[in-house]
Amino acid sequence: MAEWQRTHTCGELRDSHVGQTVTLNGWVLISRKFGNQVFVDLRDRYGLTQIVFEADNAELFATADKMGREWVLSVTGVVRARVAGKDRTDVATGRIEVEAKALTVLNACPPLPFSVTEFPDEEPANEDLRLQYRYLDLRRRSIQGVLTLRHRMNKAIRDYMDERGFLELETPLLGKSTPEGARDYLVPSRVFNGEFFALPQSPQLYKQLLMISGYDKYFQIARCLRDEDLRADRQPEFTQLDVEMSFVEIDNVLGLMEGLAADMLQKCHGITVPTPFPRLKYADAVLRYGSDKPDLRFGLEIVDVSDIAAESEFTVFKSVLAAGGVVRGINAKGAADRFSNSQLKPGGELPKLVEVYKAKGLAWMKAEGDKLTGSIEKFFPDAVKAKLKEKLGVQPGDLLLFVADKAELTANALGALRSHLGSALKLYVNWWEEKAAWDATEGAAAKKEKRAAKPFAMRPEHFNLLWVTDFPMFGWDDEEKRWAAIHHPFTGPMDEDVPFLESDPGKVRAKAYDLVLNGYEVGGGSIRIHRQDVQNTVFKLLGMELDEAKKRFGFLLDALQSGAPPHGGIALGLDRWCMILAGTTNIRDVIAFPKNQKARDLMTGAPAAVDARQLRDLGVKLS
Amino acid sequence: MAEWQRTHTCGELRDSHVGQTVTLNGWVLISRKFGNQVFVDLRDRYGLTQIVFEADNAELFATADKMGREWVLSVTGVVRARVAGKDRTDVATGRIEVEAKALTVLNACPPLPFSVTEFPDEEPANEDLRLQYRYLDLRRRSIQGVLTLRHRMNKAIRDYMDERGFLELETPLLGKSTPEGARDYLVPSRVFNGEFFALPQSPQLYKQLLMISGYDKYFQIARCLRDEDLRADRQPEFTQLDVEMSFVEIDNVLGLMEGLAADMLQKCHGITVPTPFPRLKYADAVLRYGSDKPDLRFGLEIVDVSDIAAESEFTVFKSVLAAGGVVRGINAKGAADRFSNSQLKPGGELPKLVEVYKAKGLAWMKAEGDKLTGSIEKFFPDAVKAKLKEKLGVQPGDLLLFVADKAELTANALGALRSHLGSALKLYVNWWEEKAAWDATEGAAAKKEKRAAKPFAMRPEHFNLLWVTDFPMFGWDDEEKRWAAIHHPFTGPMDEDVPFLESDPGKVRAKAYDLVLNGYEVGGGSIRIHRQDVQNTVFKLLGMELDEAKKRFGFLLDALQSGAPPHGGIALGLDRWCMILAGTTNIRDVIAFPKNQKARDLMTGAPAAVDARQLRDLGVKLS
Repeated sequence: MAEWQRTHTCGELRDSHVGQTVTLNGWVLISRKFGNQVFVDLRDRYGLTQIVFEADNAELFATADKMGREWVLSVTGVVRARVAGKDRTDVATGRIEVEAKALTVLNACPPLPFSVTEFPDEEPANEDLRLQYRYLDLRRRSIQGVLTLRHRMNKAIRDYMDERGFLELETPLLGKSTPEGARDYLVPSRVFNGEFFALPQSPQLYKQLLMISGYDKYFQIARCLRDEDLRADRQPEFTQLDVEMSFVEIDNVLGLMEGLAADMLQKCHGITVPTPFPRLKYADAVLRYGSDKPDLRFGLEIVDVSDIAAESEFTVFKSVLAAGGVVRGINAKGAADRFSNSQLKPGGELPKLVEVYKAKGLAWMKAEGDKLTGSIEKFFPDAVKAKLKEKLGVQPGDLLLFVADKAELTANALGALRSHLGSALKLYVNWWEEKAAWDATEGAAAKKEKRAAKPFAMRPEHFNLLWVTDFPMFGWDDEEKRWAAIHHPFTGPMDEDVPFLESDPGKVRAKAYDLVLNGYEVGGGSIRIHRQDVQNTVFKLLGMELDEAKKRFGFLLDALQSGAPPHGGIALGLDRWCMILAGTTNIRDVIAFPKNQKARDLMTGAPAAVDARQLRDLGVKLS
Repeated sequence: MAEWQRTHTCGELRDSHVGQTVTLNGWVLISRKFGNQVFVDLRDRYGLTQIVFEADNAELFATADKMGREWVLSVTGVVRARVAGKDRTDVATGRIEVEAKALTVLNACPPLPFSVTEFPDEEPANEDLRLQYRYLDLRRRSIQGVLTLRHRMNKAIRDYMDERGFLELETPLLGKSTPEGARDYLVPSRVFNGEFFALPQSPQLYKQLLMISGYDKYFQIARCLRDEDLRADRQPEFTQLDVEMSFVEIDNVLGLMEGLAADMLQKCHGITVPTPFPRLKYADAVLRYGSDKPDLRFGLEIVDVSDIAAESEFTVFKSVLAAGGVVRGINAKGAADRFSNSQLKPGGELPKLVEVYKAKGLAWMKAEGDKLTGSIEKFFPDAVKAKLKEKLGVQPGDLLLFVADKAELTANALGALRSHLGSALKLYVNWWEEKAAWDATEGAAAKKEKRAAKPFAMRPEHFNLLWVTDFPMFGWDDEEKRWAAIHHPFTGPMDEDVPFLESDPGKVRAKAYDLVLNGYEVGGGSIRIHRQDVQNTVFKLLGMELDEAKKRFGFLLDALQSGAPPHGGIALGLDRWCMILAGTTNIRDVIAFPKNQKARDLMTGAPAAVDARQLRDLGVKLS
C-alpha cells in the first residue's frame, strides 16, 4: 500500500477512533484560517471530516494555507475530540477532527467555473454550464445521493427478480429497423454497405422469442433508444426494467409487479405501501379523472352532469348536449375564495388551461352560503340547482367548474384542470417539498440547539400507485383512415372480445395494463398474442398486408407457430421511477451523463463531425 | 387463475406428491404409444415429467395420440408412482408420473426444421440453420444451461461488487467518436444532420470522469461495440464488467478482482481456487511461455539456450546469434515417440506451426537412452550436449525442439508450439472433456444400474488464473514511425519510469495488468494517468498535437486539472468468462441472439435496407 493511501474514509471516524493515527484521502470542500489554525473540511463520497493544521507545524501550515476548494489531498494525522461546544450534529463525524501530521497534495485545482459545495446560500449554476462540466456537477452531494439511490433501486430489482426465478438475459443492441411507432436510431454497416442496424426501442420481440424458446421467466434492465423530439422527462436513451413470463394471465404479472414496487419503496425509502394496488378501468379513469394516468393522491373527481344540465336553460350546455356532447364538472372544494371572478374569466388562470384543449370555455359557479352565484347560475332553476348541489356534494365555499363539449375533449380539458387544481390547492404534498420544509424548521432547530434531529419520515401516502386496465385495443386513425394499435401490435385481445376483431374492432379491449405512480405512467405491459392466426388478423386490421408483415416480422410469425406458449409481461421506466423516488422533476438529474433537450451532450460535444474515411467505409455520404 | 394454469413446474413433482391433482404446462419433448397408453415427456425450463394418457379416457387418448414434438400443453392429472422397475434416475421426477384427466392444447406445432431434444444420438443441426431459427435453438437444454449460468455469473458479480460499496452507474450509448484503436459504430443524428454519435467501445472516459466526480467505486456490466472483422471468439457487441476505483494502486485492483474471480468460480461451479493469483512480468511471460497470456495448466517452459548454442558448431545457430538473435528451446517431456522424424521435417505437424511465424525452421533432438539423436546432434560436442541436457532437464524419451531467430519472432513461434504441444500431449484437461468422458462411463453405468450417479466433480486445477504485469507502455510503430500505446493512452507509467517518458519511451513500463484464464485474456486494466501534464506528455509522444488532443479529449484534459484523484480499474470480458465457465469455445453459444461471423443476424436479417424517408431525415445518402 502506498503511504498516501487512506486507512479510513472521510465518513468513518467516531469518538472511538480518538488517539488513532489515520490517513484520509479526499477533496477540500472548504478551507478557512482562524489565527494559528487552518481548518479543512475534507470530503469524499462517504462524508466529510474536519482536518486541523496547526501553525506550529510550519511547512504543513503554509501548504494548507494556500490550498483552495477541490484540491485533492492525502492527510495523515491523529484523531482527536473537538473542543467542547464545537461538535457538529449534521455530519456523522461531527464529534472528532484530525490533527494533520503529514500532507500529500495529490492534485491541485484552479478555481472552477461554478461551486459544487451546495451550501444553502448558493444557487446552483445554470443547467447548460453544469452539463458542459458534468464531471463537476456530479460532485454535488444531491446528485451523488440520486445516483446512489439509482444503484440501490436497480440492485433491489435484481435481487427481487432473481429470488423469484427470473433470468436476466441480454438482448442485442444492433437489431432490425421496424418503422412503427417512434423513430429508430440507425447504424450503418461497414460489412454490408447500404444496409443498417437499428438500435432497440425496446427488447419487445426478443423477449417474446425467449418465451417461445422456453425461458419461462425473463427480465433485463435494458437500455432503449428512441430518436424522438425530447420533452422534460424524456431522453434519447432510457433504461427500462423489461419483464416477460410464460403461462400467465394478467393477475400474475400485476401481482409480481406489486410485490416489486412495494419492495423498491421499502428498500429505497423504508416505507410500506399497501398491496394490491387499486385497479381502474381505462374508461373510468378517463371519465372520473380525465386521464389514463390519474394522480390519486387527491380526489377532485370529475362528475358527469349532462342529465342535470339538460334540465337547465343554458343554451350553450343544451346545444352541446343536442350535438351528442357532454357536460361535466369538478367541485373544487373550498376554492371559491382562492380564485377571484376575474381569474375565472376567459384568459384567466383556470380558463387558460382548458383552452389549450380547445374547450370553448370554462363555466363556473360559487357556493356562497346556501346560494350558488356566478354568471350562469341564472339559467338554473332552483330545483335543478338542488340536484346539481346534491350530485356534486356542494358545501358553502365550493367552486364548481364545468366544461361542455365532445366527451374526449371534455375529459382532457377537465383532466388538466384537475391536475392544476390539485397542485394549486395543495391537495397533496410531494415528500421532497415536505422534507425541504422539515429541514428548514426541525432540521434547522436541531442544528441550532446542537442536537440530533430525528430523520424525516416519509409516509406511504407520498407514493400513490394504481393500475389502469381494460384499454381499448385499437383507436381510429383519422388521417390514415385505419385502425391503430393503442399499445403495440403484439398486445392480446380480451378472450371474450376476440369475436369483435373482425366485426367491430373499436369494441375490442386489450389485455393491457399501465402502472401509474403519482400521475406518471411508470410501467406498461400486456398479455401478448401467442397464436399466429390472431397475430395475422391484427396485422391485417392495422393495414399491414401479409407480405409486408412477413417481411418485417416473419421470424415472429414463424415463431408463433413453432410452439409458442401463452405469455405476457411489462416494462417499467426506471429513469422515471428514479426521478419520482429521488424527488425531482428533471429527468437529467437521475442520469449520470445526460443529453440536453436538443439531444446533444454538452460535455463531449457529441454528436460531432467524423472523418471522411469513416463515412467511406460505411458506404454513406452526407446529403 | 385461468383453469389451464400450472400448479407445479415440470421439474417439481416427487414421491410426496403422489395422489395429488396437479396441472402442468409445457412442451412435448417426445410422445410414444405403447398399446393402450400414450406416454408424453412434458418439458419446461425446470425439468420434465412423464404424462400418461390411458385409452379408457377415449377423447384425451385420441388427442394425445396425434400430438407431435413441441406442442404446448396444459395437462391436469393425478400424480402416481411409476410401475416398479420403471423409475428413471436421470431426471429428478423419475419416480412419479401424472395420469392425465384433462388436456388443453395451448398451441400446436408443425414439424420443425431441426430437432431440439438433444438426444445423445442426434447431431446438432448446422450452425447457420440454428442461427436462422435461433428461438428454436435456444430451446436446447445445453444452451438453456449456458444462459442460466450467465445469469448466475452476472448476479454473483453484482452481489460481490455491491457488498464492497461499488455503485453500478450507467454510462451513455450515444457518445463521441474518438478514432483511435478499433473502428466505432456510428449513429447519424436527425437533429444535427451531418454529425454522428458513436457507440461505445468501452466506458473508459466516462468511468475516469466518474472518479474525478468523486464516485470512488464504480462498476457496470456494460455493453460495448466494435466494428471490427470478427474472429471465432469475437462479436460486434460484447459485454464487459467495467470497474474503476479512486485512491488505489495496482495491488488494490488485483486483490479485488482475485476475490471476485474466486467468488464467481465458487458460485458458478462450487470450486475454491487459491488466491492470490501468481503474477508474471510481461517480459518473463514472453521469455518463458512465448505469450503475454500463457496457459499455465501445463509446464513446457521455453528455455533460452543461446549460451550453450554458441558453443556448438551448428552454423545456423551461430549466425543467428552473431546477428543478435537468440536460440531457445522446449523440452517436450516423453514426446520422442509421439512425433516421428517425418512429422518433424519441414512442413510436418510441428515445423508447420513455427513457419506461420516465419521462423526459418524447427531444429530438434530426441533423447534415446542416454544419447541425443537427430540431424543437428552431430554439431554438438559431448561436453556441450551435457550442458544442454542439464539445462533442459533431459531424460530418456524426451523431445527437444529449438527455434533460432530474433527474440520476438522466436518467442511467438515457440509460444504457438508450446500451446499445440500442451493440447497434443494432453498435458491438461478441459473440465468439459473430462465431464463428457465421465458421463459416458460413470453416468452411463449409473443409468444402467438404475442408481443415482455422484455428480461430476470439477477441480480448482481446471481453472488456471494468473496476472501478467509490467507491460511496456509504448511499442514502436514502424509504419507510422511513432510510438503507440500498448494498452490505451490513459494508462499510467510506473512512478520510477516517469523520467524516461521524454528520454527513452521504450523503457517505460505501464501500471497495466492483464488477467489470464486458461490461456485466454479475460481481463485487463491499469492505474490511470491522473495528472494533466503527464497526460499531455503521453498524447504528444503518441504523435497527437495539443490542439488535436484538446479537440478529441478536451473534456478529459480539463477534468484532469479539476481535482482528479489517483485512480485505476479493470474490465473483464464477460462473454469470454462465460464461454470458459460453460466449457465451450464458440462465443455464440453464450449469447442469446448472436451475429454470425459476418456480423449479420440470420434470424431477423439485420442489417437491412431502410426507407428512403428515414435516410432523408438523417441527412445521409448511400454512396
